[in-house]
Amino acid sequence: MRIAVVAPSCTLKREAAERVQAIGADRGDCELVIHPQCFLSDGHFAGPDEVRLAALREVMADPAVDAVWFARGGYGSNRIAEAALADLPDAAHRKLYMGYSDAGFLLAGLQKAGIAAVWGPMPQDVLRDGGEHAIYRALNWIVSRDPAALEPDLQPPAMAFNLTVLSNLLGTPLEPDFSGVDLLIEDVGEQLYRIDRTMFHVASSANVRRVSRLRLGRVSDVLSNDPEFACDEAAIVEDWCGRSGIRFGGRADIGHDAQNRVVPFGS
Amino acid sequence: MRIAVVAPSCTLKREAAERVQAIGADRGDCELVIHPQCFLSDGHFAGPDEVRLAALREVMADPAVDAVWFARGGYGSNRIAEAALADLPDAAHRKLYMGYSDAGFLLAGLQKAGIAAVWGPMPQDVLRDGGEHAIYRALNWIVSRDPAALEPDLQPPAMAFNLTVLSNLLGTPLEPDFSGVDLLIEDVGEQLYRIDRTMFHVASSANVRRVSRLRLGRVSDVLSNDPEFACDEAAIVEDWCGRSGIRFGGRADIGHDAQNRVVPFGS
Repeated sequence: MRIAVVAPSCTLKREAAERVQAIGADRGDCELVIHPQCFLSDGHFAGPDEVRLAALREVMADPAVDAVWFARGGYGSNRIAEAALADLPDAAHRKLYMGYSDAGFLLAGLQKAGIAAVWGPMPQDVLRDGGEHAIYRALNWIVSRDPAALEPDLQPPAMAFNLTVLSNLLGTPLEPDFSGVDLLIEDVGEQLYRIDRTMFHVASSANVRRVSRLRLGRVSDVLSNDPEFACDEAAIVEDWCGRSGIRFGGRADIGHDAQNRVVPFGS
Repeated sequence: MRIAVVAPSCTLKREAAERVQAIGADRGDCELVIHPQCFLSDGHFAGPDEVRLAALREVMADPAVDAVWFARGGYGSNRIAEAALADLPDAAHRKLYMGYSDAGFLLAGLQKAGIAAVWGPMPQDVLRDGGEHAIYRALNWIVSRDPAALEPDLQPPAMAFNLTVLSNLLGTPLEPDFSGVDLLIEDVGEQLYRIDRTMFHVASSANVRRVSRLRLGRVSDVLSNDPEFACDEAAIVEDWCGRSGIRFGGRADIGHDAQNRVVPFGS
């Protein structure tokens, strides 16, 4: 199986690319083709918009590529997502796309276009503590649809998003239909007042209110709130679900960490 | 003129209240009634939702109150804004409401309800360097509609919002009609990548695309971006305006500082 790695957001570390390719070679069941665009740097991004877009569209259109694996998050895929999804060739529809965090902008648009989008670990995750496990889990899904890679309590159709990314894609051309969806959210590096504010925004959406349930993954590296917020992230999410008529489904096994599980979008 | 101060978001400092009341006494043209709710503290907020809501509705309904002045920003007015605006008595319609930053959630809802909402300095601003000037400017508008208090280049109808607050009120019941509006934005304490992401979200809104022009106030206390973002906030906003068919109207004289000018919503 041929897996192309591109970076629609930020620059991939060379060490991560080398370690992930070594894992692929060791497994022997997949070939990881790291697009040179992954190593470009242009301010915040892995190359200018046009260059990131061209690399992404190149691998999407390549019939020899079985899966597109987003190198890492950060920020920036939203800047090219709409253009990436315009006038797609058939080959783009016949492959799987995996990533999470900022890549959620692309996953949302892909799902909306009827293309197989999957929340899951990304190559840069190999640098996390225990990161090899995340890479094996991702590849186990991409290569052989190993059910052990899945978030264990999914009730398809499912989707998963970083909460802040979800908030920022509502009302944009990337927003998918959430009707009946088992919607998983997580976040990283925010103050709790921001989580509360973002939940206000997300839970106000008529589209989001049509989910079958909302489940909360890990909220990690929470920044200090001055003064203390007085309740935790689970209480915040449950509160907004209650106010909005959304069924709160408890915790989910996703997050910005090596334990992050796989969530295939749709049915 | 009787001006009631309430705190729908965070706790007002006693020193600020005392200094602002002294300014009011010194002027002799207004009586500042600081609601005791302003000094409550409940986690992040100036008292629980029910208590902040009750204080706000109390002064809104009081026929003896000529203006409601929001004590300060922070976070939290969105949690009570919809309830604050339900089933309003006539007296609530016959007064002016001033604030900015997080109070933008209330200003938006008030404007939508046809009530006089005004962006302008708040009592807690007296603690800023040169903050007395901000207090005089705000009171000059509230008491005597002094044109010198106004943002100097307004083309009514106008509105002004903290960019992050604006992003979080889109799609909620508080979202006003932006058709033909001179829309001013500003922000504080964000990384530039977040300004870019929020502009993506805001500029995708069909409602926001109907503004007559979008102008950028000050973006202050910008947090460091790793790596450097490679362009400044004005280039970011102009870029998203260009992508979205929004007329960029240049800079505006508003921000989280003592120079912050007054922007009456509507015509």
